[in-house]
Amino acid sequence: MINVGIIGYGYWGKHILRNFSGHEATCVRALCDTNTQALQQARQVFPGLEMYADCQNLLRSANLDAVAIITPSETHYDLARTCLQHGKHIFIEKPFVATEAQADELINLATQKNLTIMIDHTFLFSSPVRKIKELIDDDVLGTLYYFDSMRVNLGPFRHDANVVWDLAPHDFSIIDYLIEDKPVALSACGKSLFGNGIEDVGYITLYFHSNVIAHINLNWLSPIKVRTTYIGGAKKMLVWDDLNPNECIKIYDKGVVVENRNGHCNHLVSAHSGDMWSPKVDQQEALRLEVDHFVDCLLRDTVPISDGHTGLRVVKLLEAANASLKTGGKLMYL
Amino acid sequence: MINVGIIGYGYWGKHILRNFSGHEATCVRALCDTNTQALQQARQVFPGLEMYADCQNLLRSANLDAVAIITPSETHYDLARTCLQHGKHIFIEKPFVATEAQADELINLATQKNLTIMIDHTFLFSSPVRKIKELIDDDVLGTLYYFDSMRVNLGPFRHDANVVWDLAPHDFSIIDYLIEDKPVALSACGKSLFGNGIEDVGYITLYFHSNVIAHINLNWLSPIKVRTTYIGGAKKMLVWDDLNPNECIKIYDKGVVVENRNGHCNHLVSAHSGDMWSPKVDQQEALRLEVDHFVDCLLRDTVPISDGHTGLRVVKLLEAANASLKTGGKLMYL
Amino acid sequence: MINVGIIGYGYWGKHILRNFSGHEATCVRALCDTNTQALQQARQVFPGLEMYADCQNLLRSANLDAVAIITPSETHYDLARTCLQHGKHIFIEKPFVATEAQADELINLATQKNLTIMIDHTFLFSSPVRKIKELIDDDVLGTLYYFDSMRVNLGPFRHDANVVWDLAPHDFSIIDYLIEDKPVALSACGKSLFGNGIEDVGYITLYFHSNVIAHINLNWLSPIKVRTTYIGGAKKMLVWDDLNPNECIKIYDKGVVVENRNGHCNHLVSAHSGDMWSPKVDQQEALRLEVDHFVDCLLRDTVPISDGHTGLRVVKLLEAANASLKTGGKLMYL
Amino acid sequence: MINVGIIGYGYWGKHILRNFSGHEATCVRALCDTNTQALQQARQVFPGLEMYADCQNLLRSANLDAVAIITPSETHYDLARTCLQHGKHIFIEKPFVATEAQADELINLATQKNLTIMIDHTFLFSSPVRKIKELIDDDVLGTLYYFDSMRVNLGPFRHDANVVWDLAPHDFSIIDYLIEDKPVALSACGKSLFGNGIEDVGYITLYFHSNVIAHINLNWLSPIKVRTTYIGGAKKMLVWDDLNPNECIKIYDKGVVVENRNGHCNHLVSAHSGDMWSPKVDQQEALRLEVDHFVDCLLRDTVPISDGHTGLRVVKLLEAANASLKTGGKLMYL
Repeated sequence: MINVGIIGYGYWGKHILRNFSGHEATCVRALCDTNTQALQQARQVFPGLEMYADCQNLLRSANLDAVAIITPSETHYDLARTCLQHGKHIFIEKPFVATEAQADELINLATQKNLTIMIDHTFLFSSPVRKIKELIDDDVLGTLYYFDSMRVNLGPFRHDANVVWDLAPHDFSIIDYLIEDKPVALSACGKSLFGNGIEDVGYITLYFHSNVIAHINLNWLSPIKVRTTYIGGAKKMLVWDDLNPNECIKIYDKGVVVENRNGHCNHLVSAHSGDMWSPKVDQQEALRLEVDHFVDCLLRDTVPISDGHTGLRVVKLLEAANASLKTGGKLMYL
Repeated sequence: MINVGIIGYGYWGKHILRNFSGHEATCVRALCDTNTQALQQARQVFPGLEMYADCQNLLRSANLDAVAIITPSETHYDLARTCLQHGKHIFIEKPFVATEAQADELINLATQKNLTIMIDHTFLFSSPVRKIKELIDDDVLGTLYYFDSMRVNLGPFRHDANVVWDLAPHDFSIIDYLIEDKPVALSACGKSLFGNGIEDVGYITLYFHSNVIAHINLNWLSPIKVRTTYIGGAKKMLVWDDLNPNECIKIYDKGVVVENRNGHCNHLVSAHSGDMWSPKVDQQEALRLEVDHFVDCLLRDTVPISDGHTGLRVVKLLEAANASLKTGGKLMYL
Repeated sequence: MINVGIIGYGYWGKHILRNFSGHEATCVRALCDTNTQALQQARQVFPGLEMYADCQNLLRSANLDAVAIITPSETHYDLARTCLQHGKHIFIEKPFVATEAQADELINLATQKNLTIMIDHTFLFSSPVRKIKELIDDDVLGTLYYFDSMRVNLGPFRHDANVVWDLAPHDFSIIDYLIEDKPVALSACGKSLFGNGIEDVGYITLYFHSNVIAHINLNWLSPIKVRTTYIGGAKKMLVWDDLNPNECIKIYDKGVVVENRNGHCNHLVSAHSGDMWSPKVDQQEALRLEVDHFVDCLLRDTVPISDGHTGLRVVKLLEAANASLKTGGKLMYL
Repeated sequence: MINVGIIGYGYWGKHILRNFSGHEATCVRALCDTNTQALQQARQVFPGLEMYADCQNLLRSANLDAVAIITPSETHYDLARTCLQHGKHIFIEKPFVATEAQADELINLATQKNLTIMIDHTFLFSSPVRKIKELIDDDVLGTLYYFDSMRVNLGPFRHDANVVWDLAPHDFSIIDYLIEDKPVALSACGKSLFGNGIEDVGYITLYFHSNVIAHINLNWLSPIKVRTTYIGGAKKMLVWDDLNPNECIKIYDKGVVVENRNGHCNHLVSAHSGDMWSPKVDQQEALRLEVDHFVDCLLRDTVPISDGHTGLRVVKLLEAANASLKTGGKLMYL
């Protein structure tokens, strides 16, 4: 039985608690939050849980194997370091930390102490992403040409992070998972529309060693919620609409034929077009599969698919995107 | 009666001929195309038309007041200059010309000779764009925050222009028409996916003096056709789906309230949300209204809403976008 | 404080328990189910609840004011009569009972003992139905012409009731609520597709004193779930799509103008067509509002909007529909 | 070369003329319409055509092999009989005639004179219907369970026919084509909403020898146009949305498993559910394929798929539907 402590009992912390509580191989022993009202609420539902307002007390008193850190991102580095120093495995909300240097330090610390770090990139465990991964790995799509994601909604507006730090971790982690090649440079544009220095819209383009290109459209001010991703491949093309549970993935038998005539400047590009196919995608809760995976990694001593290095790569992209954003789109090499 | 000649009888030229022929105040006298097969086809339907393979002959022989130039864009400058030198008003397909300098020269030439130039930016005459213009002018949307357009489809692939020169003139002209403020800089990213140096995907961000930001997503490799534009304003937000004739414009009673607390870094941003409203939009043919407008401008000696200066501004944006594209997104001042 | 007992702890019973438990003016004292496993599950979450396998024991031992009967419909009559005889108000799942005679008897019994009967016609408390009621009452739609509902899905197949008894209570209660005029006759068609005598598809047409006509399409074998209702009025027309939470009601400024020329056989009918408008509809849980209403009726001694007479009218329609179904559509007067 | 005459030059007559004119094996010689204005319009586009105001003159003077009758349906019987008596093959708009007796007489007349009758049931030549026919013939759907069509729109209101005579010929001919088994009885309900005796809404249920059931929902007063047909089979289910050109047919890997337990009253019905698949459907003009088929039948002396007998079966259904409609849904045996 793995003893788990949870730091942070906000909206997402509740889901984390529910899933760790429901797992047969884990026992949630303790909860930590500076908000005493949140702790009292938790006490009503889980009377047996130890409650702490302070992380140090949690780590000293409770007999824990792992800690889930579900707090605002600016607290991640300190909390994660403390937990690792106390010999705890950590499961930590995205984004991992604020800088590449912090990520590096934590990864090294975990390696020294033989501890596991898993970043809570929930989308890697969502059924559509797993199905798309399978389609790419089975070469159903062929060589990838582009990945184009639109992730917009009306709010919620955050004051501790801009739209890129808030939403891009989702797309960066999905791209990191789906596209084997890694990005070499990016350009990001955006704007703080209300003069508070916090960008509300952001547009990011990622360049890769190979031919593929990725684009992300982020917006807190859209009248309608859109969560649509287009993936173009040489053989087939795909549209993933995360808000359409019944037909969330559509695969189009459409692709492009390139005929090389008289040298490279005379490519003849033409498209073919055929049936569309929408595979059945299970509607399992991603967070449940994610917690299963974390527990499984601890029990078997294997590396999570969203380990510290994944988290580091995402942070690196976030840092570069932010830097490019401030210069109006300057290309940043990674 | 205005005597009109048409140079170029391809796909679009046929629509141009049909519309000028149908207009009560114009008479199409002559047609010019280097493709003799195209001319023969036209002869069957319009036996009375004079046919020319050469533009010089057309201009010398036919008694014309105005010429519609509906040819590949690399021929625009020469043809337009020749027509203007022969004292003809011109109606010319988008994009106007290839460089700002060419546009300047033609505008000056037309001014000297008191001739009219109208660029065929058809979208300015489409019913949804006119309705959106009306909504903006009536301050229904409030201060504009962003304009975000997705214009993607599978092909057709062009070999004489990249996706930006092919598709961005539509969005640039719409932005020029709808947003009173003019762009000051832009950043463009994209890629030639087939190694022939012709970009197939392009993402452009426009910055303005005022707070508004515009973004355009262009792609020749999308499995599905998308023609959707989001426009966010302080009072209301709008989605224009040009492929949904019945509900092509939806106006959302959603907006953002900014409360200034303790100085500019403490803005509290919140959203309100209410009804949606889809105004009836007439389904008139845009090209017919456009030809009406051109004829009207000639008869009344007024300036077309898409005059040479409009064309020049669009060309300037295209040149800047292309330059930025080659550098991976570098900010280009306009 | 109203003391409540619940008979039946299946899928819907859990929701009923949750809502009565959460209400400040009620206290759920006891639960009754013949399934001991279900009771044990409940005991874990609600340790303080009295548990009974037998309804008689529940009524004798627990000190109850009201009983919620959430059991298969063939048990309704006996359970409801017993509860009323013991002086309990009842909240009872739809359909009320199996025959008009049973409904009559229970209504009389309740009247004698001054007890309240409320039928659980949940849709009467759903936000879209309440909004449509408001639009009709405010004469926004004008004189009603037709009500046309499609309520289809793939399963779940029931073995204790055909598709009409399973699904039509929803539409019958909605029609009863929205349309002031009452039906005078109906015709129903359908089929038992698997030879087990249980109809899986059903089509019902209701005729009224006034000009309005209603139609209901019910099907357990549809590949996709559809919950769409069209309501046509003289002034405006409405489409309610219960599966589209963001735009669940669309009101079309479309109607019909009838011009009476030279007597009644020469009506000239023409349509006008304008904007569409989608009002914001709150997404409150209907069952919560329904429980509020029941409690409110008990506290104020008022009549529920879905009282025994409503239940009786729905049962009468169900009986007539079943009879018509067996004859292939014969008109049944009500 | 087949010489063709056309009687009736209204909306549909123009399409008929265009298609017969464009066919390489036919020559349209003459046009007949009582409306002289319509004839003058036609003369401008087709100066060579002989024009007649009277059918008798057309038949006597013009040298015709076949006549297309595209006139109001109440004129069909007289015109068709006259054409057949003059030895002309006929292509005749739906519905064929007004009564089964008229259809019988014309079929016999054509047989005696060895002439071809083809009813213009255009949908039998539409690409989606042909694809569905193929899917049924290849047993992709399995045993059919139901056919459910919704065909509604706002107008156009007709004064010479009710909604059933106007729209049901489409569905009746499609059902006749797709479902091998023939209907044995039907029930129809509906209403004349404006008191002019012309039904504006109609609901028809068809019963068959085999287990399949068909239902048709017709309405001239719908705020939105719907052209959706659901077809359920034991193996797969299908939705055909004729207004969605890109994904007009969706085939769902959903079906029903019936397990026979302890005799026929204990069937256990359960559903399985899998992928969805949307085959590419060509977007050819149905009328062009239909004219091709008519010409082909004349040249090869073969029987059209929509011959007089097809037309007769549709008329029989229309007569029965009308009779049932007048009685409020009484079952009519065929």
